[in-house]
Amino acid sequence: MKFFKVNINTAAPRNPEASILLIYTGGTIGMVSDKQDEHLVPFDFSEVIHRVPEMRQFKVMLTVLSLDPPIDSSNIGVEHWIKLAQIIQVNYEEYDGFVVLHGTDTMAYSASVLSFLLENLSKPVIFTGAQVPIGRMRTDARRNLITALEIASAHLKGKPLVPEVCIFFNTQLLRGNRATKVESRMFNAFNSGKFPPLAHVGIDIEYNQTLIKPIPETPLKVYQELEEQVAVLKLFPGITPAVVRAVLQSEGLKGLVLETFGSGNAPTYPWFLELLQEAVGRGIVILNVSQCEEGEVRQGQYETSLYLREMGVVGGTDMTTEAAVTKLMFVLGKRLPLEETKKLLQSNLRGELTFRG
Amino acid sequence: MKFFKVNINTAAPRNPEASILLIYTGGTIGMVSDKQDEHLVPFDFSEVIHRVPEMRQFKVMLTVLSLDPPIDSSNIGVEHWIKLAQIIQVNYEEYDGFVVLHGTDTMAYSASVLSFLLENLSKPVIFTGAQVPIGRMRTDARRNLITALEIASAHLKGKPLVPEVCIFFNTQLLRGNRATKVESRMFNAFNSGKFPPLAHVGIDIEYNQTLIKPIPETPLKVYQELEEQVAVLKLFPGITPAVVRAVLQSEGLKGLVLETFGSGNAPTYPWFLELLQEAVGRGIVILNVSQCEEGEVRQGQYETSLYLREMGVVGGTDMTTEAAVTKLMFVLGKRLPLEETKKLLQSNLRGELTFRG
Amino acid sequence: MKFFKVNINTAAPRNPEASILLIYTGGTIGMVSDKQDEHLVPFDFSEVIHRVPEMRQFKVMLTVLSLDPPIDSSNIGVEHWIKLAQIIQVNYEEYDGFVVLHGTDTMAYSASVLSFLLENLSKPVIFTGAQVPIGRMRTDARRNLITALEIASAHLKGKPLVPEVCIFFNTQLLRGNRATKVESRMFNAFNSGKFPPLAHVGIDIEYNQTLIKPIPETPLKVYQELEEQVAVLKLFPGITPAVVRAVLQSEGLKGLVLETFGSGNAPTYPWFLELLQEAVGRGIVILNVSQCEEGEVRQGQYETSLYLREMGVVGGTDMTTEAAVTKLMFVLGKRLPLEETKKLLQSNLRGELTFRG
Amino acid sequence: MKFFKVNINTAAPRNPEASILLIYTGGTIGMVSDKQDEHLVPFDFSEVIHRVPEMRQFKVMLTVLSLDPPIDSSNIGVEHWIKLAQIIQVNYEEYDGFVVLHGTDTMAYSASVLSFLLENLSKPVIFTGAQVPIGRMRTDARRNLITALEIASAHLKGKPLVPEVCIFFNTQLLRGNRATKVESRMFNAFNSGKFPPLAHVGIDIEYNQTLIKPIPETPLKVYQELEEQVAVLKLFPGITPAVVRAVLQSEGLKGLVLETFGSGNAPTYPWFLELLQEAVGRGIVILNVSQCEEGEVRQGQYETSLYLREMGVVGGTDMTTEAAVTKLMFVLGKRLPLEETKKLLQSNLRGELTFRG
Repeated sequence: MKFFKVNINTAAPRNPEASILLIYTGGTIGMVSDKQDEHLVPFDFSEVIHRVPEMRQFKVMLTVLSLDPPIDSSNIGVEHWIKLAQIIQVNYEEYDGFVVLHGTDTMAYSASVLSFLLENLSKPVIFTGAQVPIGRMRTDARRNLITALEIASAHLKGKPLVPEVCIFFNTQLLRGNRATKVESRMFNAFNSGKFPPLAHVGIDIEYNQTLIKPIPETPLKVYQELEEQVAVLKLFPGITPAVVRAVLQSEGLKGLVLETFGSGNAPTYPWFLELLQEAVGRGIVILNVSQCEEGEVRQGQYETSLYLREMGVVGGTDMTTEAAVTKLMFVLGKRLPLEETKKLLQSNLRGELTFRG
Repeated sequence: MKFFKVNINTAAPRNPEASILLIYTGGTIGMVSDKQDEHLVPFDFSEVIHRVPEMRQFKVMLTVLSLDPPIDSSNIGVEHWIKLAQIIQVNYEEYDGFVVLHGTDTMAYSASVLSFLLENLSKPVIFTGAQVPIGRMRTDARRNLITALEIASAHLKGKPLVPEVCIFFNTQLLRGNRATKVESRMFNAFNSGKFPPLAHVGIDIEYNQTLIKPIPETPLKVYQELEEQVAVLKLFPGITPAVVRAVLQSEGLKGLVLETFGSGNAPTYPWFLELLQEAVGRGIVILNVSQCEEGEVRQGQYETSLYLREMGVVGGTDMTTEAAVTKLMFVLGKRLPLEETKKLLQSNLRGELTFRG
Repeated sequence: MKFFKVNINTAAPRNPEASILLIYTGGTIGMVSDKQDEHLVPFDFSEVIHRVPEMRQFKVMLTVLSLDPPIDSSNIGVEHWIKLAQIIQVNYEEYDGFVVLHGTDTMAYSASVLSFLLENLSKPVIFTGAQVPIGRMRTDARRNLITALEIASAHLKGKPLVPEVCIFFNTQLLRGNRATKVESRMFNAFNSGKFPPLAHVGIDIEYNQTLIKPIPETPLKVYQELEEQVAVLKLFPGITPAVVRAVLQSEGLKGLVLETFGSGNAPTYPWFLELLQEAVGRGIVILNVSQCEEGEVRQGQYETSLYLREMGVVGGTDMTTEAAVTKLMFVLGKRLPLEETKKLLQSNLRGELTFRG
Repeated sequence: MKFFKVNINTAAPRNPEASILLIYTGGTIGMVSDKQDEHLVPFDFSEVIHRVPEMRQFKVMLTVLSLDPPIDSSNIGVEHWIKLAQIIQVNYEEYDGFVVLHGTDTMAYSASVLSFLLENLSKPVIFTGAQVPIGRMRTDARRNLITALEIASAHLKGKPLVPEVCIFFNTQLLRGNRATKVESRMFNAFNSGKFPPLAHVGIDIEYNQTLIKPIPETPLKVYQELEEQVAVLKLFPGITPAVVRAVLQSEGLKGLVLETFGSGNAPTYPWFLELLQEAVGRGIVILNVSQCEEGEVRQGQYETSLYLREMGVVGGTDMTTEAAVTKLMFVLGKRLPLEETKKLLQSNLRGELTFRG
């Protein structure tokens, strides 16, 4: 994994209103046609100003850091996440904000994990991307890029407006660990059904300031440990003991995200309970989230979730699967005693869940 | 599993406009408070007319068949599905339509599988349920029940309007194998994001007749075989070889629904490809659907899905996971040669996918 | 205009949790079939408990006051509004909350005007109605009625939760002077596009407490004066001097709601300016609102609205036409000096507009 | 009114796939900052290619016709509409499609009237505009312009895909006489609540071909007569006889659009009926549309609309006010006998209303 860096000129290279680091990892947003107009090839982001000349109006100092070669977001993994956190750490003092260009497929996972790795963040880290390559005439790449840069450099009384890891896409600024990719054909690729957008973008950018987290008083702390031995088990009627056993007893497993029905319900078949109980007994941490888009786990409301609570399964309230998986990796990465691990998983660490007393 | 049957009186017991079989399997819709008003207990559906006296206006002959005891929908499984198919088969001639009361959690799975088990259906099979028990004052149970009955008995020129397995909920009639539970707190629990509703219910019931399937000319054929040895593997960045291997090599596995990113993309890590390739080589049928709500698998659009097609993974286009799992159970249950199996999975059998030439 | 009053029994006639006055004015909600099932006739609301027996569970003392005969809401006028305000005034101490049943067509106007007539309201006044008569099997009348009663009797620590004039309809509680009828066929007849709902109703009623006005410390003051000499002039391209002159010079006119384009724009034709200027010179008060559903008047943003501000037209920011007409009647009814009148029109009196400094 | 014309170079000036006439009338889309960056001034559209260099990829021959000086859309009137129709007539053979840039405020009126003036249209006439000036960095002007051009030049087997007068805005292609401006701050300024979009624009432009009108077999006929003596009367509770009389008896009046409540209801006060009756008696044509956004006039459903039908008021079913006003101008402009006039008003001329047998 290699990154290279270039500075690019905007309207105010000498007296900029802000300085932004643009980190290009890959994805549709950076694609252009090759000379024969036959294939899409990655675009050299150091020349972005020639593609998007209206950016010259932008009164910020812009630096581009490109992953070389760029990667498709389906191949993003733990090592890239750690590297991104390190890049932000190293460049944290020098820049006022960060924009991360990323493929849409796994952007919600990456934005979630970065939100956990960057504790006490006081500067914007805005992920964006595009459904259509920047090299096409009718593309959402320009507007997503320009608006993400505008948000990353937005200040009020000398302080950043959005000190959070977010996804900006189409017209919405979403908290990163609340977002999910929901669309593969239209421009509104992301939403965050269980938490309102932090801003709506139209003629103005209308920030919802009561939702945005305040700037912390303690300095940034960057974590670099993620536990990779986690799995996701999505339940369905008719699931067999063989499959549940295979996952729960897979080699080295430390944590499991259990995707349940409705408000956190699962079968009460004896074999199912026994397999879960056995895994819990071995110290495997199980986090219960709903496979229902707007669902919220309320373990104990029905008999079909009450027993999960009683056996020590952690209720994930309204976390997305994306947030749950990455939070589990993050919390397990701290290697804390079991009870502290479970307590952290249920706590609201970065605005990723709605705490219900 | 036991069912009991009672007839109940409506406005027109002697000269009904239609006869409907109401099959109560369990779920929130059938709950009332016990005498001490402390717990919710299942309701005796043979007395539904006392709870919902406005049903007396209904000009149909109504028969209730109750599962005794009712079951929570989290515990629904293959044997219940087969039983439901049998009940419809046995009673098919005697009734004009069928309404199935079912818990919301797994209703989309049950409606999907019934759509496959009932080939050449020419009468309505309408699933419904409720978010709030029928015994509560402010409940959606009455209106869902009444509207489902109205739809199940709707005729035009002597022919049923909706010869399909559907879910009616709140204000929308959805094709059963297109629906997903999306809400656990509001009344609009289901939607079908990739296919329009078959009807919108307001002052009138506005049927979208161009979407509803025509009445078949061949007689009903009821299947009773489902292959239970299937699994779902939801991908996420950072997924480990241990987990993928455990699932793919779980005992007896015949088929796998692979929940991929965006338009059907997956990692191209060598270990991942090798594990998939090995499973395909052992005859395991892999069906690729998108974990993105409005996503549509287009294997081959990007490099990260092209190789899946090349190794023989079946693209599920715009099927929901609910439809994909149950279709895989159904098609594998036929025990056909591999190529026929794959061809059926890609075909539009019951309106469950949009065929793109 | 005559009202008659009856008490009806609910679950707790002796030890009720609240006492509610249900005021039936007319409208679809109160219609049932006559004995020959040929026509819809108004329903005797004193018998509502027989129609909606689930209301017996309701732990409130319920009194019904019916307008005799009921009137279609298209015929509602100033005298009915004054009468409604008086009824609430006379019964204010005796009841904990008020539910007004009203035809949907003009409900937004009536709820708006009541919000102005009732100053320092500390008890709920909830308007509701129905798209389908209560006498029909598939109706929204029951649920709208029951939920409105539940909201009107909702208390927290001994204080009413919603001390406002509201419209409850389908699943939303809307501030009365923010609501507009938008649908004539589906159940979601009302919305308030420029202001969020005060509550969403699903399994629970989720109140948005930061939006609901606090209980005032000063006692209720009921106004009984409305200026009837007002008009609405909706602009359109090609409007003729003859029409504008006829309206502005109509006999006795005191105030005009001018429905302009977009963010408050109007033509700058000399004849148009002269006619407006002449009317303003005669002391006619002109209030500018947008004919664009989500539009907000910002006089001065473009040249085509700047001159309106300069000639003394009052900008209505984001008021609906329904709120603007009734507010103009109310403020002119106070017979204040011109500058005070204009100041009140621009002020946020009852939450009807968003004040932008 | 003066227009000037320039040709601009695109990718394929010698071998274009289509030739498009771009007619710039004025509006936000054409504004840029002046040199001092203090005011917005109209932009010289002949230089559009320098502002939107990505248009060079466009394989069409583009000609720009600019109104000089451009006008704010609040000042658009009948003479501009006739002139636009003439421009299209004169240039009809030379171009494959037309794009009209227009201020958003009255765009729906202009698109409606053009749809009536251009009978048997077989080429696209696509209106568009912007919420944010083209000279701003974050603007919707580029994408609206580019997409409108793409739609105007879209062909299938040598025939234009959209032979209609449409509005393209944000992501939707709407039939012009079905559209309404609904937003003044966000990018989705228009919708057509009572008729589905003709296309949704995302990664692809997904045309809904069953809704788009077929190419007519008879040649284009351009009308140049509009009756200006029309008015709009929006009803509200408490409206006075003085105002109704002033409008109905205004000098020279020929036609009136009556904006009623809900599904076409109006008061039944004797004075109101008498004034309407008297106007009808004088030959004034009255067209009833609903002020309720999704409302549809069904005269006769309730007593409060039945009498309107009986006295000869024409029911406008689901026409928007924008379509109703311009259709009334168009039909009265033909100077036909009264019964023919009324028949045409109720007919579906250009897809502007849903004909209900």
